[in-house]
Amino acid sequence: MSGTDADMRNSNSTDEAASAGPAASMPLYMRIASELSLRIASGDLPTGAKLTSLRGLAKQKQISVATVEAAYGELLSSGMIEARPKSGYYVCDKGRPAAKLPSRTRPNGSAATVSVSKPSLALLEHASNPKMAPFGCAIPATDVLETARLDRLMNRLNKAADGNLNIYGTPMGLSELRQQIARRHAAMGDFPEIDDILITNGCTEALYLALQAVTEPGDTVAVESPVYFGVLQIMETLGLKALELPTDHKGVSLDALEGHLRKGGVSACLLSSSFSNPMGATMPASLKETLLELLGRFNTPLIEDDVYGDLDTGDARPKPFISLSSATEVIYCSSFSKSLAPGYRVGWIRSKSRMHNLVKRKFSTTLCSAPLPQIAIARYIQSGAYDRHLRRLRKILRKSVHETRSELMRCLPAGSRISNPAGGFVLWAELPPTVDTNVMFKRALAENLCFAPGALFSASGNYRNCFRVSCGHHWNQAIKVSIRRLGELTHQLQ
Amino acid sequence: MSGTDADMRNSNSTDEAASAGPAASMPLYMRIASELSLRIASGDLPTGAKLTSLRGLAKQKQISVATVEAAYGELLSSGMIEARPKSGYYVCDKGRPAAKLPSRTRPNGSAATVSVSKPSLALLEHASNPKMAPFGCAIPATDVLETARLDRLMNRLNKAADGNLNIYGTPMGLSELRQQIARRHAAMGDFPEIDDILITNGCTEALYLALQAVTEPGDTVAVESPVYFGVLQIMETLGLKALELPTDHKGVSLDALEGHLRKGGVSACLLSSSFSNPMGATMPASLKETLLELLGRFNTPLIEDDVYGDLDTGDARPKPFISLSSATEVIYCSSFSKSLAPGYRVGWIRSKSRMHNLVKRKFSTTLCSAPLPQIAIARYIQSGAYDRHLRRLRKILRKSVHETRSELMRCLPAGSRISNPAGGFVLWAELPPTVDTNVMFKRALAENLCFAPGALFSASGNYRNCFRVSCGHHWNQAIKVSIRRLGELTHQLQ
Repeated sequence: MSGTDADMRNSNSTDEAASAGPAASMPLYMRIASELSLRIASGDLPTGAKLTSLRGLAKQKQISVATVEAAYGELLSSGMIEARPKSGYYVCDKGRPAAKLPSRTRPNGSAATVSVSKPSLALLEHASNPKMAPFGCAIPATDVLETARLDRLMNRLNKAADGNLNIYGTPMGLSELRQQIARRHAAMGDFPEIDDILITNGCTEALYLALQAVTEPGDTVAVESPVYFGVLQIMETLGLKALELPTDHKGVSLDALEGHLRKGGVSACLLSSSFSNPMGATMPASLKETLLELLGRFNTPLIEDDVYGDLDTGDARPKPFISLSSATEVIYCSSFSKSLAPGYRVGWIRSKSRMHNLVKRKFSTTLCSAPLPQIAIARYIQSGAYDRHLRRLRKILRKSVHETRSELMRCLPAGSRISNPAGGFVLWAELPPTVDTNVMFKRALAENLCFAPGALFSASGNYRNCFRVSCGHHWNQAIKVSIRRLGELTHQLQ
Repeated sequence: MSGTDADMRNSNSTDEAASAGPAASMPLYMRIASELSLRIASGDLPTGAKLTSLRGLAKQKQISVATVEAAYGELLSSGMIEARPKSGYYVCDKGRPAAKLPSRTRPNGSAATVSVSKPSLALLEHASNPKMAPFGCAIPATDVLETARLDRLMNRLNKAADGNLNIYGTPMGLSELRQQIARRHAAMGDFPEIDDILITNGCTEALYLALQAVTEPGDTVAVESPVYFGVLQIMETLGLKALELPTDHKGVSLDALEGHLRKGGVSACLLSSSFSNPMGATMPASLKETLLELLGRFNTPLIEDDVYGDLDTGDARPKPFISLSSATEVIYCSSFSKSLAPGYRVGWIRSKSRMHNLVKRKFSTTLCSAPLPQIAIARYIQSGAYDRHLRRLRKILRKSVHETRSELMRCLPAGSRISNPAGGFVLWAELPPTVDTNVMFKRALAENLCFAPGALFSASGNYRNCFRVSCGHHWNQAIKVSIRRLGELTHQLQ
């Protein structure tokens, strides 16, 4: 029945029965996952069968989308189902099971002084080399971004302003852009005033200022592990220690975090809102709420990085932490660099209580952001063009991530695990422990193939057998060949 | 003889005689100053007489321009001569002597923790209010900058790039721009490789990264007093203490600096290269060399801020510290914000030995600067347009500073002192001690007049009787009326 739909619309009664079955002491999402796995094992849901959509099943069972998401996440993790771009969730071919998701990481549990090596800077250098296969830097390719319309708009605005935008802006940024950002927050269930928003030079400056505002040098900050190397670089500059938390496709371990909070000495927590870089993790909404309550109990602020949030592949944009609860202080950071204009250098911070402090820091770090790119992006959003652009971009990235993942599944050594993110455009692969991706990186560069070796994503030298592949480009034959070549390199290094 | 030239070309023998006179134990520049003051007092050089140019007298007497500059500086300071824009130095009208230059400041000599108040941010807000008389923020007005040509160039480049500039640049910045900057450094007698130059978001980020690179929180940094409030804001953010040095029109007191260096505990020194903000001070080249030797002896790095350096009013651009000596480490910071494009947010750092560290910090603070404004400025410089622009701009600013100064001399209370800078476009006025410019600031704002109250320029609450006036605009009747009104306010507050 491969290729046909075995929609679950007709299995409503069976699903409802599951919630009253003998396993009633399990969490609801586990009961649903368990029921579905039985139906898959029995052939009731055969290979290629399409599962009911997240929203569809939530409606049928009168439960939250987040619960269904968590249930499907369990099945994704076990390799029983897979997410196909634009289409939905499907039962896997048993002859070629989906690669397992990367296992929950086990960082060593002590805070580490951060000292980042050179390769992270090198990735940016390689990103501007057109000869290099673009799997290194997590940046969408210019032909994927198609910013001709935005660029034209900026040129028109610049011409019309007749020099009047060639001024210092205010440190907070243009109110017109902050207004548009506030509206987008409202659509996520967060309702800032425009003076709760500060424009920054990309998300890097946002994270830098936020971390600096809530810590002192020597403090410890809890982060995902693996964690985006840019975060580690900021922490090194600010003299902070990184406490890496065990992480899987549903985000950090709350148990581990609670243990550390009880021990004391954690000054802040910095997490991805969704589609984490590099692991592709998204914490279900219910877990996000639990995490916020936990941090609230220990009076520990959360900084969230939502830079991939607009790039969901599924039905809905996940809510960031700041939309969910006011149990603890949340400082929200994001930018347009992954979704629209990396070269414009426009990001923002949204904070409920610390804006005056943040504005002073912005003033002393870069004075103000350039007015012209801000007004261009504001008008672009206002015209509706940004949302249209996002719909187009999501399709391209979805396809690229899916095809890259499929290709990697075919060509990586047996036992490899690959992330299966519900958004963003990076994949995280875990290879057999004998493969050293630092060695692989050097060989790959020599063949004009770039990727991000796993060791970059840890302050304590983990993940040498892992690597991150950026899929921010159109999927095509040349890309396929390059991915296959990467796969060959992994075999050579086993 | 007012208005006629009494050129000193024919007084060669007299001048030479001075250097062998009975005061031979005085420094040479003092001997020259003393000789000239006698000739002025005797009427040999009458009111309105034009003095020989700096270079002319240096050539005649076979001494350095710096020595003549120092001699004329003494006479300027005493109010016996004045500098007229574009024209040269003239003997003052004895009926209306030039206002004396501000006296050497006497900060209290202990390092102060910095805590900057809100008004410095407010200046940026007021700068974008077209109703406000623009004496607050030190920024050239858009009609003075006339960046239509530069803006058109940027639009053309953006169009031609077809989206290919909408990328992350490298953290160091575009090599094409660094090449142009390196060439400009060479013209000042400094010869960097392009990899000794790092592009920043304006001079603020340059100073921020430089200070961060050479200090730890809690360290003490020696600065001019009064000092640009942006520097104080950076120091507050970085947790640094400000040691304010006595300063006059020739820069900081070397004796005071030496005393502090001997006592120990000074981690770095941060000074203006020329035309300091707010005092308009320029240290003669010979004193700069002495200062570098002094810092070298105590192994103390110097950060210099040369943001006004291209805006000289006289014959030649003063050499920055980095061109003069290698006795100590110098980190040079500048930008195009005062001379071309405040809205483009492009500055740079030039360092001989600390670039790797600085690049890492840049990467973690703002990742990279936007490529488009960088390439636009690079091409603009390369075409020769920047130098043409500077020649035009210098004339406008020179006239504005001179006329504003003349008007202030007429309308400030007796005993006021006003700076007479040889470049840049800010004036610093010292009023009788009873005038509180914080009170004046509130009254002025209520009348849509902005300026910078003196207290902003000190970490220890000095200069409440001083204020800074920005002259970065065309001189016209409306400006004249506003300056006069500022003068009236000072009288009301006496």
